[in-house]
Amino acid sequence: MGPGPSDVSPRVLEALSRPTIGHLDPEFIGLMDEIKTLLHYAFKTNNELTIPVSAPGSAGMEACFVNLVSPGDKVIVCQNGVFGGRMKENVERCGGVAIMVEDSWGSPVDADKVKAAFSNNTDVKILAFVHAETSTGVESDAATLCRLAAENNALSIVDTVTSVAGIDVDVDGWGADAVYSGTQKCLSCVPGISPVTFSARAVEVISNRQHKVQSWFLDMQLVMGYWGGNTKRAYHHTAPVNAMYALHESLIMLKEEGLENSWARHQLNHRALVSGLEAMGLSMVVDAAHRLPQLNLVSIPEGADDAAVRGALLSQYSLEIGAGLGALAGNSWRIGLMGHASNQKNVLLCLSALDNVLTAQGAKIVSGVAVAAALAEYG
Amino acid sequence: MGPGPSDVSPRVLEALSRPTIGHLDPEFIGLMDEIKTLLHYAFKTNNELTIPVSAPGSAGMEACFVNLVSPGDKVIVCQNGVFGGRMKENVERCGGVAIMVEDSWGSPVDADKVKAAFSNNTDVKILAFVHAETSTGVESDAATLCRLAAENNALSIVDTVTSVAGIDVDVDGWGADAVYSGTQKCLSCVPGISPVTFSARAVEVISNRQHKVQSWFLDMQLVMGYWGGNTKRAYHHTAPVNAMYALHESLIMLKEEGLENSWARHQLNHRALVSGLEAMGLSMVVDAAHRLPQLNLVSIPEGADDAAVRGALLSQYSLEIGAGLGALAGNSWRIGLMGHASNQKNVLLCLSALDNVLTAQGAKIVSGVAVAAALAEYG
Repeated sequence: MGPGPSDVSPRVLEALSRPTIGHLDPEFIGLMDEIKTLLHYAFKTNNELTIPVSAPGSAGMEACFVNLVSPGDKVIVCQNGVFGGRMKENVERCGGVAIMVEDSWGSPVDADKVKAAFSNNTDVKILAFVHAETSTGVESDAATLCRLAAENNALSIVDTVTSVAGIDVDVDGWGADAVYSGTQKCLSCVPGISPVTFSARAVEVISNRQHKVQSWFLDMQLVMGYWGGNTKRAYHHTAPVNAMYALHESLIMLKEEGLENSWARHQLNHRALVSGLEAMGLSMVVDAAHRLPQLNLVSIPEGADDAAVRGALLSQYSLEIGAGLGALAGNSWRIGLMGHASNQKNVLLCLSALDNVLTAQGAKIVSGVAVAAALAEYG
Repeated sequence: MGPGPSDVSPRVLEALSRPTIGHLDPEFIGLMDEIKTLLHYAFKTNNELTIPVSAPGSAGMEACFVNLVSPGDKVIVCQNGVFGGRMKENVERCGGVAIMVEDSWGSPVDADKVKAAFSNNTDVKILAFVHAETSTGVESDAATLCRLAAENNALSIVDTVTSVAGIDVDVDGWGADAVYSGTQKCLSCVPGISPVTFSARAVEVISNRQHKVQSWFLDMQLVMGYWGGNTKRAYHHTAPVNAMYALHESLIMLKEEGLENSWARHQLNHRALVSGLEAMGLSMVVDAAHRLPQLNLVSIPEGADDAAVRGALLSQYSLEIGAGLGALAGNSWRIGLMGHASNQKNVLLCLSALDNVLTAQGAKIVSGVAVAAALAEYG
């Protein structure tokens, strides 16, 4: 129940351990095609260039930036947590100019500040922001931000690592241009793969590049030779075949449950957890309007030692919760309810364990009431 | 029995499917430390910076180049197959200048040409070459080439994707500076991870860089914050936890067998395969002195259709062999005997299947003698 990787279901682990076949085997090519179709569903997009990058989410982020940013390009980067800072690094390492729009950690991206940044800068090529900040548990308004980008003739790059399958990610509805995600959050697949999708407009920009993409491994024009179209697949790199089995299975499970049902499940378990935590006297860090149901930031109560509590949860209950990051380090915990791990059993386990560990430490909480409060939400 | 991924042993698949834990879990940190120690053994090195990159071999290659090549640097790149060409791409995408030393596909790198390239160019920073060319089945003399680099005050970058565990890879003995490998060849692990090792001299060059590494994901100074030393591990990216379980298990299996025994096994099965193929009347493409035991290039005999034979082997025998690449496409096959898949049963299956399929196609071969010739090698 940390910020990811989340628990992986036995079905996905079983798929993962199927015998490895060749990355150009006709059977594997068929599986690749199915993965693309299933990713269209997960991302709510018809974008042709929708594939899993063969590396973790941070490589998916880099794939978006290296393919779209050319030297000298201006990019508005919204930072309200760890991952906006990483986007800035990416822009600068591509030779681009990052125009920062900063909001405090724990708050969403302020669209008015973004509007002002567009007004104050000409020829902005890209707006980049994080939909669901894993470091703070905050959702930003992706629809509004993508619309602002489009109105200003800019492309949008959106981080949906933690959002896909947990809350609504509507790539085509938003009109987003380059979107990357991760497998190890609400998809409950093993870490190591990053699904990405590029709009037709983004593909056109990539096709018209004057400089070669600085990364050979992440060059989408080359990757497409392996993943793309109906033509013969050309060898680019050796795909992580087994991880693709796992991704395929996790996407099938998402399709079986249905996106809307998955979101509703994440909401329900989130409400129950919050009720329990608040009954215990703990307070949530993020305003209710912007909370991610899959990642819950809670203030560390008076009298509790951050590391000692997390250590006790792990050693006594085999339960991982995450530390706060940056401005939130030492004063908050991050409790994940992602994918397969977003379930009633985990909510109750976490509340019971926290209650016991905090009480044992003499922290200032109301003991013995959290589970009942959570159960009331399940009705 | 293609050019990789090779068959993965049940032990490694079992390890792969263990429950996913956090990438900062103390148990996982312990496993990371064991992986580093085991990689020291596999690479025959004491280099402190010895870790698995969380992405396929082509990302491992890129990690070596982006960390060591700065804009304007001169790099001698030896090309005698596909992967030398990829190295050239990497140098140029880093803003470096590639000085090409070319040898024909199927031949090893000619050290005299490399010597001449050093004589004809001043201030060469790096010599890059492929130890075991997966596209041609050729071994080049890594010890001599690394010595040439050192004599000319240049660093060496060596591709050992296909060589580690199949033939002697002696990183410290060679004095190599940056070496990358893959998991899906003679380690018989799942594809998707690339072990790399950097000498103290290479680390010094990285530490003194004036430009940031263009890839955030592959920046070794950042990666070391997660994988390195005895200090607290800092989050960089989410490691592919399950793939690391698998790599750990495959390295333990290598240690149990012993490097020398693994090389001897690859040699024995190679000799048996070659005896069988030659008895059948087929001829090997590469001179005996430079053949890789783990990847066998054989000429396609008169009367055989390349794709039809490979298709029949796959559909009738579930047996994959690889097509030739580049100059060798259409006139040769690549038969892998890598790691777990380098065994007597596979040698005999491959020879029987080829005999049957080629005979059925009316190809010009000597039928019915291959298996006996192979068995003679096993004594």
